[in-house]
Amino acid sequence: MRRQPVVTDLRALHLQIAQKKVSTSSKELADVVGVNSWQVRKDFSYFGAFGKPGSGYDIENLKKQIRKILRLDSGRKAALIGVGNLGSAVLAYQGFSLYGFDIVAAYDCDPERIGKKINRITIEDVAKLGNLKRKKISLAILTVPESAAQQIADRLVRAGIKGILNFSPIRIQVPGRVKVLTIDIAMDLARLPYYMT
Amino acid sequence: MRRQPVVTDLRALHLQIAQKKVSTSSKELADVVGVNSWQVRKDFSYFGAFGKPGSGYDIENLKKQIRKILRLDSGRKAALIGVGNLGSAVLAYQGFSLYGFDIVAAYDCDPERIGKKINRITIEDVAKLGNLKRKKISLAILTVPESAAQQIADRLVRAGIKGILNFSPIRIQVPGRVKVLTIDIAMDLARLPYYMT
Repeated sequence: MRRQPVVTDLRALHLQIAQKKVSTSSKELADVVGVNSWQVRKDFSYFGAFGKPGSGYDIENLKKQIRKILRLDSGRKAALIGVGNLGSAVLAYQGFSLYGFDIVAAYDCDPERIGKKINRITIEDVAKLGNLKRKKISLAILTVPESAAQQIADRLVRAGIKGILNFSPIRIQVPGRVKVLTIDIAMDLARLPYYMT
Repeated sequence: MRRQPVVTDLRALHLQIAQKKVSTSSKELADVVGVNSWQVRKDFSYFGAFGKPGSGYDIENLKKQIRKILRLDSGRKAALIGVGNLGSAVLAYQGFSLYGFDIVAAYDCDPERIGKKINRITIEDVAKLGNLKRKKISLAILTVPESAAQQIADRLVRAGIKGILNFSPIRIQVPGRVKVLTIDIAMDLARLPYYMT
């Protein structure tokens, strides 16, 4: 994947909105997420000017423009597959709508979980994954055990999914048209000691 | 934080070890995690040669050297704070020892959770966070609700923690000597649509 730092800018905006701010600067945006302000200005100049340098940015307008760049302006729908501990935590998380999408469906294979509700989503039988296309869901969050990840990924691709956020520590194989982002928590933890004194 | 791609190389090595391989090339390493092979070679030349180009690398030796660079060779200990759904999922995850560290303690404030065991770790009362220093724990995984994150971070710093993997969507404030890496799952999901056709 190409570098895409403007997502970080969007995150910074959300943190500022939470603080009830209405205008901001590249310096403030940078501080709030801990990057350099030249990085924020570089992003903005790469994607086109969002305001007059030096006079500050209107936060709501900036948010709208960044969402458009990131193709998050159309209200994306996501499904989650695998409602164990991790899946339940992700389902209960309220932060997705900030970025312009919602988790609208959840699937599991355990009869004890099917039919239960988490955060207004009723867990469906994973055998019904085929209905993702009809529901116009293009994103999937994969929180199944490692042993099931590839098989479920294959079925997601057949059901028309175009982007997968993968939490299994394996590399899942998908056609080139489908984008996969893998989150390996252990790898992230492994980044820290290098910077520790 | 500076760029630190060599962690990805370590992840690639682990995936190859899982496949029972004993030697590898920069091309193979790159393929297995989906980066360019020039990236892998750049990392290796930046940190010093690990083998003869063209003749392949011994996987175990490479792993040892990368762990040393990342300061993961001394067997780091980590604690987890907040044993809700997310915390339970992280505790149950087996992938940490691959990177040279172990989660050796877990804390929560809920009396119903304190005393329970997950993956051989007995959950302790968060009031006892002060004993982290005595236990020689330098890393913490923060999976508490957003409202508690800053307060717990302050206590972790006082208990001698030097690196925090933060799963709350807020920016926690810590002294410069403490490194924080924040994982925002919604932000990661937000990266995908930009690349989707």
